[in-house]
Amino acid sequence: MIRYEFSAEASRIVRSEIRELLAWSRRADTISFGGGLPDPSLFPVADLERICAEVLGRKGYLALQYGPTPGEPEALESFSRYMGVYGDRADPGSLCVVSSSQQALDLLTLLFLEPGAPAVVEIPSYVGALQAFGRAGADLRGVPVGPSGMDLDALEEVLRGLDREGKRPRFLYVIPDFQNPSGVTLSRDGRERLLSIAGERGIPIVEDSPYRELSYGAGSLPSLWTLSGGRGVILLKTLSKMLFPGFRLGWIAAEEEVLSKIIGLKQSVDLCSSSFLQLVTAAYFESGLMEGTLARARALYAPKRDAMVEALGRELPAGSKWTKPEGGVFCWATLPERFDSKEVLRAALGEGVAFVIGRAFHCDGGGKSSMRLNYSFPSIEAILEGASRLGRAIRSAEPDRAGREAGRAPARAEA
Amino acid sequence: MIRYEFSAEASRIVRSEIRELLAWSRRADTISFGGGLPDPSLFPVADLERICAEVLGRKGYLALQYGPTPGEPEALESFSRYMGVYGDRADPGSLCVVSSSQQALDLLTLLFLEPGAPAVVEIPSYVGALQAFGRAGADLRGVPVGPSGMDLDALEEVLRGLDREGKRPRFLYVIPDFQNPSGVTLSRDGRERLLSIAGERGIPIVEDSPYRELSYGAGSLPSLWTLSGGRGVILLKTLSKMLFPGFRLGWIAAEEEVLSKIIGLKQSVDLCSSSFLQLVTAAYFESGLMEGTLARARALYAPKRDAMVEALGRELPAGSKWTKPEGGVFCWATLPERFDSKEVLRAALGEGVAFVIGRAFHCDGGGKSSMRLNYSFPSIEAILEGASRLGRAIRSAEPDRAGREAGRAPARAEA
Repeated sequence: MIRYEFSAEASRIVRSEIRELLAWSRRADTISFGGGLPDPSLFPVADLERICAEVLGRKGYLALQYGPTPGEPEALESFSRYMGVYGDRADPGSLCVVSSSQQALDLLTLLFLEPGAPAVVEIPSYVGALQAFGRAGADLRGVPVGPSGMDLDALEEVLRGLDREGKRPRFLYVIPDFQNPSGVTLSRDGRERLLSIAGERGIPIVEDSPYRELSYGAGSLPSLWTLSGGRGVILLKTLSKMLFPGFRLGWIAAEEEVLSKIIGLKQSVDLCSSSFLQLVTAAYFESGLMEGTLARARALYAPKRDAMVEALGRELPAGSKWTKPEGGVFCWATLPERFDSKEVLRAALGEGVAFVIGRAFHCDGGGKSSMRLNYSFPSIEAILEGASRLGRAIRSAEPDRAGREAGRAPARAEA
Repeated sequence: MIRYEFSAEASRIVRSEIRELLAWSRRADTISFGGGLPDPSLFPVADLERICAEVLGRKGYLALQYGPTPGEPEALESFSRYMGVYGDRADPGSLCVVSSSQQALDLLTLLFLEPGAPAVVEIPSYVGALQAFGRAGADLRGVPVGPSGMDLDALEEVLRGLDREGKRPRFLYVIPDFQNPSGVTLSRDGRERLLSIAGERGIPIVEDSPYRELSYGAGSLPSLWTLSGGRGVILLKTLSKMLFPGFRLGWIAAEEEVLSKIIGLKQSVDLCSSSFLQLVTAAYFESGLMEGTLARARALYAPKRDAMVEALGRELPAGSKWTKPEGGVFCWATLPERFDSKEVLRAALGEGVAFVIGRAFHCDGGGKSSMRLNYSFPSIEAILEGASRLGRAIRSAEPDRAGREAGRAPARAEA
């Protein structure tokens, strides 16, 4: 009889509720507000057919071979140039290609975290980051996000608390632009103050920046990377939101001291990312198609955001709150305290609509009454229909009503 | 001043000597016996151009989107059918797609290993596995490989030693077919005995099987996976040697208890592998082209193996030993004890030929006089020229000669 003996790390893994919801998002009869999926109508299929053929024809011997761990030189140069368009300067040699920004989070987990190592995250924050950091047994300290991003008074209080315990966080993890899941953006002043707080104490910042290009308004604020001159900031970029997730590509920009260790760790986790996909992506970037792609995404998502925000106004019960993001792909809604969004989700899946419960994004067990609602994937019609289904689900999960009906029949037990 | 504080895990990372050699393999003037790179003339470029266009045209909306963590259902079915052709039975539901078998090794590291956790590996063994296992701080116990694979008397002795310490290995890691780096194959009897030894003690086996299809002789022996009925064996497969490494795809077959945890861990390391590359690979497998691809590889590599083995006979000094593998892509040569292959490598790079030093494959610090020599990547002409350069390098690194010359000039210092 074989006996498997697992590591402590394996025992800390909790499967993501979003990933489990992906199965629902592929069901034709369910409308998904769950994942952060781009609208597939944006996928530049014809351009990619052409570029794939070109790359295979001209550089198949490189594209199908093992590549250097930090990435194909062409891709690194192309990513560096692309960053420049958005005001961010980074040499190709200060970048490392990763197999999606989730891999960047995994590498940072390996690099910085271990059982009991403190790190500061936002409340709420990206579930995939919490999952990776939690796997390592890190001691996560949460700082609430307000309408202008991370509450910096609260950050100082958390850091003073750590000081009193004689501890120092390994990094501060922030998503400054159109945050996942809240949709809010850290203000310009907030960026300066955050850098000054972290800089005074010598604490590195991890700037996760998947949505920065998806600004529906006047453009983006300067990145923490740029404001800091790249010192003490580790920047994570991904193709998944700006282009498409199916290539699983992104990159990390960091100082040499960090980057060289990231490259060593990446050797041990997957040797290198696909050279083929890197070369295709570099050719796409160099083709001059990117600005059009991003403009189409912004033009498609802004009215979807409007549709979602207006529908929430109609469907959510009195006392609810929700964000109106200036970019990105998520709204964040909080029902009155008596609601448990897990119960709402159960009812919603029965009605044929999916979302992610707030608790998944909270390192402190909070978020009971909150929901993350994605609007980039569903069509406007699906947003309207989905919101109406969500409204019905919320009404059926109304705790007072449940209390009234509990004596009669186990109506919700099988949902 | 930013102060980075790294994890204990990060401090254990040693960059792979092979990866550093990849830079040399891309230099036109250096002949590389270093990496385990396939011959790029085998890359089915035209077929891929066609299949990429088909997949993008018909299924771009899936191919470019996020996919399920265990893999695209089509790819899992296709890999399951492919295994059947080689006598291995596995349901699609018992497989998880990985971003290359290095990722499989990373996931197994996360799943099973932690500081001090014992695991048994072969001496010599694959450097990427040693790197990943070592990163976790595992307590690696080595068992020598002989002409018929792992020395099973030595294995029993190692296990008895662990018993005496009150320890139990988390797994036994073996490469039964055309082992990396030694090129040897575990005999049929050896396979039965290995399973019986592991089974008696309830220890899982990790069967790494990248080269099994590349048999130049009568075909392959049954896998440990098949001999065990899949119980207690975790099987790792990769496209990198049978097809091409540039897609970074492979898969793991395992019992449900293990597979479900692997899927949870994979969520945290990269969410999912590229749906696009999975769908292209599935279409390639289903196209009926695989057998031809593998037949071409065998036909190309067998004479290269012959050329390498014959050239070693001419170039290596008296008292050297080398393997004549029946498949796979590596020869393993051991020079007389007075040689240090690191010194030979230094001279070899000066002469324009690269290989990997034996020490990289040894968990016990051994392998001083050994070299791993790849013959799949270079042409036969390059093998002959490279072996002749290697011969010169060995003669110039002859310790007696070095001793004689040391008093005169630091001739080797700048090489």
